[in-house]
Amino acid sequence: MEKIGIVGAGLIGSSWSAIFSSKGFNVVVYDNENNVKNKFKKRVLSFLEELKFIDNKINIENSLQNIEFVNDLNYVTTNCTFIQDCSPEIVEIKQELFSKLDNSCPENVILSSSSSGMPISLITQNLKGKNRCIISHPVNPPHLIPCVEISPSSNTSDKVIKKTKDIFQKIGLSIVYVKKEIDGFILNRLQGALLNEAVKLYSEGYASSDHIDSTVRNGLGLRWAFMGPFETIDLNAPGGIKDYMKRYGNMYLNMEKNNKILPDWSETNALKLEKERREILPDDQLLKRAQKRNDMLKFIRKLKKDMNEEIFD
Amino acid sequence: MEKIGIVGAGLIGSSWSAIFSSKGFNVVVYDNENNVKNKFKKRVLSFLEELKFIDNKINIENSLQNIEFVNDLNYVTTNCTFIQDCSPEIVEIKQELFSKLDNSCPENVILSSSSSGMPISLITQNLKGKNRCIISHPVNPPHLIPCVEISPSSNTSDKVIKKTKDIFQKIGLSIVYVKKEIDGFILNRLQGALLNEAVKLYSEGYASSDHIDSTVRNGLGLRWAFMGPFETIDLNAPGGIKDYMKRYGNMYLNMEKNNKILPDWSETNALKLEKERREILPDDQLLKRAQKRNDMLKFIRKLKKDMNEEIFD
Repeated sequence: MEKIGIVGAGLIGSSWSAIFSSKGFNVVVYDNENNVKNKFKKRVLSFLEELKFIDNKINIENSLQNIEFVNDLNYVTTNCTFIQDCSPEIVEIKQELFSKLDNSCPENVILSSSSSGMPISLITQNLKGKNRCIISHPVNPPHLIPCVEISPSSNTSDKVIKKTKDIFQKIGLSIVYVKKEIDGFILNRLQGALLNEAVKLYSEGYASSDHIDSTVRNGLGLRWAFMGPFETIDLNAPGGIKDYMKRYGNMYLNMEKNNKILPDWSETNALKLEKERREILPDDQLLKRAQKRNDMLKFIRKLKKDMNEEIFD
Repeated sequence: MEKIGIVGAGLIGSSWSAIFSSKGFNVVVYDNENNVKNKFKKRVLSFLEELKFIDNKINIENSLQNIEFVNDLNYVTTNCTFIQDCSPEIVEIKQELFSKLDNSCPENVILSSSSSGMPISLITQNLKGKNRCIISHPVNPPHLIPCVEISPSSNTSDKVIKKTKDIFQKIGLSIVYVKKEIDGFILNRLQGALLNEAVKLYSEGYASSDHIDSTVRNGLGLRWAFMGPFETIDLNAPGGIKDYMKRYGNMYLNMEKNNKILPDWSETNALKLEKERREILPDDQLLKRAQKRNDMLKFIRKLKKDMNEEIFD
């Protein structure tokens, strides 16, 4: 099978390595820092164990053997046909990397970025090979969340779009195809809409941060774990979504019309929120809670698989 | 134990009846239509069975015996100390009902409404007994979603607020306390923010309705099933929520600043969405899917209970 190049061996790079290798792809991982190799290997092993919990068919030994770790970017550019950028979310770093990759890779190699919100045209604006560049945005932690946003620019070729979709379909992800470029793509725009409203409700004094969280974790989020917002409202009125939109459209429209203040993302507000969060979850328990999050995600994924709620095109 | 009055034996009234009766409360259910009694009884039985799946200690027989169905509103007003309005979401109907209840109930009776978005002061603006009126807003389907929004007006007495919180704590719900009145309270404002953005992304042609849904059901929603938006970002940057807000605050603020168009809740757009939804879920499968939704909610609730993710104050 063809070789996937992963550039950057941090959390996202490790997660992609675990997924691709577990599905039989050969993976070449590059990082410019040599000392991350051991951390990377440990991380990939634990991710593979989490993946195996969801899909018992995965063979951890074989998966690990599919992964090569290298310190020479040339090895990636000359051996891989699909390269996934997992560098830091800083536009200059990504621009430099893509320029380097575009200059050294053969023409048929696809250059894909894990960026969580930057349109690919911003990263590749001056490149000769714009047509082979695309966004494939995962969700944190990628090996546990089966969703990827594919966002081409108007320069990306149809062949590249098709091949990118094919690759992510092969590793069992649900593909969100973003038809036109937009900051934040779909996922972070939806997350942003919820966060902006949550920040407003908090800083305007309508509820505590924990009570706002509770409306999601004990309320809306139970449905959202297996139904999107449109399906949710499709089932919330006797006559389906058009009936719901007729009944409640004006309520939601008025909320938006009358919602003129901007969300307060200032340091002052951040420190207030930090204080409330640290009372609920002390500093020294953040990592433990992140592990518990992954455990919960594993169990929910397993449940959804068992209930046939993970059937992707 | 004291008697809870439920006014309206539809879906919400049936759901409240199942919850209260299963926790040992005596429940008096009133509906002005006599022929709903059989439907009501069937529904309550199936809700109790779903509740028992989550909490095996529930005794269905005893619960059913705690419920009286009556066609005389006077029986409710003279026998109950806490009355939960489950009438249709139409302001005139609720105003008339609250006026009737306020005129006939002894002073110590609390009058609470299940309204999903109308402030209680709008429903009770001309009443003598404004001080005993409050919102207790459930989430659909209430018996499976353990969250209630308590929203008083500035006229509601502290005693009424405290007693209302106590009652919903006794039946095991997570209480979201809404400190000041606002249309849509917390939950439907958050849902509205997500829906408004989803409707915009859809009608501006960025993605199909199913792909927008997928970013939630296969992406964001997996986390939101057990973590609110603030906890989610608290775990998504190495230094907690203040670190996250520093890194990404500007991105989200700019999304809001540059997001000037209004969401299109028109009939034209509703019909387009209806068409896409009916291709995925034909008309004759809506009810079956709603049952599957309830099954999934049951399993997720059970999982969260087993994993100690349902510990409410």
